[in-house]
Amino acid sequence: MFTLYYAKGTAALPVQIALEEVGAEYDLRLLDFASQDQAKPDYLKINPKGRVPALVTPDGILTETPALMTYIGQMFKAANLLPETPFGLARAQEFNVYLASTVHVAHAHKHRGSRWSDDESAFPAMQAKVAQNMTDCATLIETGYLQGPWVMGDQYTICDPYLFLVARWLKGDGVNESAFPKIMAHRARMEARPAVQAVLKFHD
Amino acid sequence: MFTLYYAKGTAALPVQIALEEVGAEYDLRLLDFASQDQAKPDYLKINPKGRVPALVTPDGILTETPALMTYIGQMFKAANLLPETPFGLARAQEFNVYLASTVHVAHAHKHRGSRWSDDESAFPAMQAKVAQNMTDCATLIETGYLQGPWVMGDQYTICDPYLFLVARWLKGDGVNESAFPKIMAHRARMEARPAVQAVLKFHD
Ligand SMILES: N[C@@H](CCC(=O)N[C@@H](CS)C(=O)NCC(=O)O)C(=O)O
Ligand SMILES: N[C@@H](CCC(=O)N[C@@H](CS)C(=O)NCC(=O)O)C(=O)O
Repeated sequence: MFTLYYAKGTAALPVQIALEEVGAEYDLRLLDFASQDQAKPDYLKINPKGRVPALVTPDGILTETPALMTYIGQMFKAANLLPETPFGLARAQEFNVYLASTVHVAHAHKHRGSRWSDDESAFPAMQAKVAQNMTDCATLIETGYLQGPWVMGDQYTICDPYLFLVARWLKGDGVNESAFPKIMAHRARMEARPAVQAVLKFHD
Repeated sequence: MFTLYYAKGTAALPVQIALEEVGAEYDLRLLDFASQDQAKPDYLKINPKGRVPALVTPDGILTETPALMTYIGQMFKAANLLPETPFGLARAQEFNVYLASTVHVAHAHKHRGSRWSDDESAFPAMQAKVAQNMTDCATLIETGYLQGPWVMGDQYTICDPYLFLVARWLKGDGVNESAFPKIMAHRARMEARPAVQAVLKFHD
């Protein structure tokens, strides 16, 4: 049994999709970012970083989306979410770490400028570059990483729910979606999956 | 046989330490950031992201430090750099992804403001917060992640070379090193390892 701490439309979304895909039993705990739930003492005991996702497992608490995706894949091997070769697994992890360390960070400069500056007058300058950075990231994914139909090719893996999250951010980040037909087709493919439909209800 | 593309004192350092620890055969290719080698067409063919590290393997090219660390651990199982349980492995990956997605990013706001803003007048505001952010990150590591003697406790793992890189950044980032005795003792422990000494020669 797992407990997932989440907020709507955040990096907890791919983790929840993975839990659903593998058929894991899990509870949900919703945090309301508008009320700053993620910064309250009760939650900081779960995750001192004050972020979601956090997953309570029988062995302890885990955070960081790429680590969670791989962990779920490994705990539920029969669901086949992990590439089988060490190189394939490394490529999948490379993709997910790229999303976490570069793409998610580029996106966060839109609303979370306060992470990197105490001076609010610097926020508009950061916001102004989000559309370009996200377009560059989408280009790298469209022309490189995304093999099709799934990120890693024929196998649906721990990369796909994570790309789905990023795809949902693009329009709001000022990216011209029609320039990225492969990513958009991937998003539609994701939306057709029962596991994704079951999860999206919690994120609207 | 592997080929590691690196620049001095960068995230390629922990990858090289891992290669050295496991006894891998590898070639080095030095990029000179002062000459912007990382942005030249020849290198963009290796890594279109224009960053280091990049590792050429017999199966293809890999990037993203946490993915590389896990890959090396998996290719050289006998060297015992990976925790054995799925939960232990997930914790190690969580730590490395935290370094890549939060700590490295906080550090990069010192010299790489141009990644997140085209307006140079915003750079000082970003730089002004680096010492505080890196102090917060060091606090989380000192009081939480770092079990001692190694990050994961008694076992030396893929987390230790990566923490070593971050520990080397702290002083230059304006962090008061003496407030972090566990991290400093870890750094000294790392510096005593033959593999680390062999690698540091290439980074001075
Ligand atoms: N590196 C973390 C990042 C997690 C993260 O930044 N989550 C955001 C939501 S997408 C968050 O919790 N933000 C709350 C805040 O900044 O206060 C991961 O990959 O899980
Ligand atoms: N997420 C990447 C980050 C790699 C990265 O940013 N490397 C820096 C050196 S530490 C770099 O190549 N910078 C060159 C540049 O920004 O032009 C990883 O974890 O490997």
